[in-house]
Amino acid sequence: MATAARPLIALLTDFGTRDPYVAAMKLVIASRADAELIDLGHDIAPHDVFEAAVFLRFALASLEGGRRTIVVSVVDPGVGSGRRIVAASRGARVLLAPDNGSLGLVIDAGWEIRSAENEALFLHGPSSTFHGRDRFAPLAAALAAGLPLDRVGPRLALVDLVALPYDPPRVGVRDVEGSVIAVDRFGNAITDVEVELLGNPREWRARAGGREIATHAATYAEREGSDEPFLIVGSRGTMEISLARGSAADLLQLCRLDPVVFHRGTA
Amino acid sequence: MATAARPLIALLTDFGTRDPYVAAMKLVIASRADAELIDLGHDIAPHDVFEAAVFLRFALASLEGGRRTIVVSVVDPGVGSGRRIVAASRGARVLLAPDNGSLGLVIDAGWEIRSAENEALFLHGPSSTFHGRDRFAPLAAALAAGLPLDRVGPRLALVDLVALPYDPPRVGVRDVEGSVIAVDRFGNAITDVEVELLGNPREWRARAGGREIATHAATYAEREGSDEPFLIVGSRGTMEISLARGSAADLLQLCRLDPVVFHRGTA
Amino acid sequence: MATAARPLIALLTDFGTRDPYVAAMKLVIASRADAELIDLGHDIAPHDVFEAAVFLRFALASLEGGRRTIVVSVVDPGVGSGRRIVAASRGARVLLAPDNGSLGLVIDAGWEIRSAENEALFLHGPSSTFHGRDRFAPLAAALAAGLPLDRVGPRLALVDLVALPYDPPRVGVRDVEGSVIAVDRFGNAITDVEVELLGNPREWRARAGGREIATHAATYAEREGSDEPFLIVGSRGTMEISLARGSAADLLQLCRLDPVVFHRGTA
Repeated sequence: MATAARPLIALLTDFGTRDPYVAAMKLVIASRADAELIDLGHDIAPHDVFEAAVFLRFALASLEGGRRTIVVSVVDPGVGSGRRIVAASRGARVLLAPDNGSLGLVIDAGWEIRSAENEALFLHGPSSTFHGRDRFAPLAAALAAGLPLDRVGPRLALVDLVALPYDPPRVGVRDVEGSVIAVDRFGNAITDVEVELLGNPREWRARAGGREIATHAATYAEREGSDEPFLIVGSRGTMEISLARGSAADLLQLCRLDPVVFHRGTA
Repeated sequence: MATAARPLIALLTDFGTRDPYVAAMKLVIASRADAELIDLGHDIAPHDVFEAAVFLRFALASLEGGRRTIVVSVVDPGVGSGRRIVAASRGARVLLAPDNGSLGLVIDAGWEIRSAENEALFLHGPSSTFHGRDRFAPLAAALAAGLPLDRVGPRLALVDLVALPYDPPRVGVRDVEGSVIAVDRFGNAITDVEVELLGNPREWRARAGGREIATHAATYAEREGSDEPFLIVGSRGTMEISLARGSAADLLQLCRLDPVVFHRGTA
Repeated sequence: MATAARPLIALLTDFGTRDPYVAAMKLVIASRADAELIDLGHDIAPHDVFEAAVFLRFALASLEGGRRTIVVSVVDPGVGSGRRIVAASRGARVLLAPDNGSLGLVIDAGWEIRSAENEALFLHGPSSTFHGRDRFAPLAAALAAGLPLDRVGPRLALVDLVALPYDPPRVGVRDVEGSVIAVDRFGNAITDVEVELLGNPREWRARAGGREIATHAATYAEREGSDEPFLIVGSRGTMEISLARGSAADLLQLCRLDPVVFHRGTA
């Protein structure tokens, strides 16, 4: 890519697009930065920090290379309280989010983390209710324009951050106990069990929603015409439970955080 | 910001994003202008001019500085009728909207206003039903490319424009009678009573939905755990009625344009 | 338009915006190309190839002139199966879509068509379920950066492509038998009968939903206050059945692909 590419600013919120909140953030940013502004999404369920964390983990896995990129995630039930704003940087990218676990599935000890406290970078108005516009947006614009990270505030350690209330899969001798971390628009029940944990996934079956699932497929199309749920390696690199042209989650009455237990044995 | 920043074109419509109408507008613009094209929103309720007006007032308050900016608002129940298209300019920005009150909460006597009637700037096809694509989009592209405003059509005075059917708050000796102008995704009932009208807002209480509200908060988080509605200075600089992690509007059965009366006295 | 305009990449999917799939596609593209990235829409009904085809026909009619443009359409029920990915080019534009009829209403013998099979252009991961991210996105970025079309794969003839299951209007001596191809957000029932087929549309009446419609209007506003459905030349250049401030489709219980028969005679 040409080195002259403008910086990228990517927005994720739970604001929806009917209210003018996303628009206000964008206009602050576009007034201040000559950047490429893209929507990651604004339909995170209101205040759902876990959904934001899962979204970011998946989406940011697709960010490559050297383009200066600022990702702004504002799912922020604690806005205006004492909760910090976190700026985390690695290589060419900076992530901005409230300190509420939103970044819990993305950053690790390899990131430089700062608490964004430099009031001079913020907008100041009569209200304290919209940090998306008054703090995140001007911060993103300044970082896109090249502001060094150490100017936003003091350094934090990873352990200083609020943890996401979530337990990764428990790996036993003969089984792996994971959970559903998302149900997508197509009804796929997406688990957190990475295919690497299983080796050859076809040697495993799963118990979920009171049912045993032993059928595997490499693509959705392969199971076309069948009304049985099946296991598939999903686009996140984790196991999914799917149904051809239907909702596996509805069929099995699976909700987010429901357990999915994998055990060896093909039938 | 670098002076070389491309012009900004920002779109607001009631078209939704399932139909191809927004897409058609964008492709006309992108075919004709090298601009930064951003979505303000496309989920205004169909034909709801008042919602558009309130959206624009809030969003455009975040537009700063000198970047050439064209804001296109197409909520247009009278499309194809004799209603005019208004182009209003101030400094580096131009607003385009049908003459139906959409700009009624944004522009004042300080703006230069034109009636966009120069047919040479429009697309001409067999139908008269989609001015968004055939008039607004090419006009926006031309203005972004530097077309002087006087080329779009004759000058109008502010009083020539169709007024928005809306009464601003009535300020009495001991009370201020405003109304709910929006209910947002989080259930906040947003009033049109600006905090400046009240001085210190904590000296006031409100009557709304048959109930007296005397509790104040500076942030939503401050009232966490309570199920009582409270007053807060919202991000628009006006008073809002909110509920921690719930919908104040649902609780109080408040709809848009319902009265909210503020009177002095803390209990 | 300045010749220096960056290439345009326009996205259409059925992914919705709550799941992170569109975001992942955008981040792959933005990591690899310095292009203008715009959303055409992501709310196509899941797996609805016909809706995508109708959307593309309408939207792409607004694409003009010489800007390098890559349109990416991913409505792809057969993802991961043997279905091909089609790259079709004409002039400055390239369209990418699964070979499932999505482009059936847009391309004709004047387009150069290729089967995108060059594996070196794709991302390779553990799953085969998300070609939007792993194939379409890197392909779009490469084409935007100037990759010649013949590098994506072997040439196809138009007849090699999967056809869209759809019959165009049947033109008789005294009548034209078309169908509803879309119902839009405003309740307009949009037919596939082009106004050119009829000559002067006012010499025709229509039968639809068990009812005779003989009233014509040039604009929606013209019928304001009436509760009768009427015929109008819509923005696609085809006949529409509309209702002032209401849904003609609901009134007449018209669904997609329902017949609409035009016959001569004004009453």
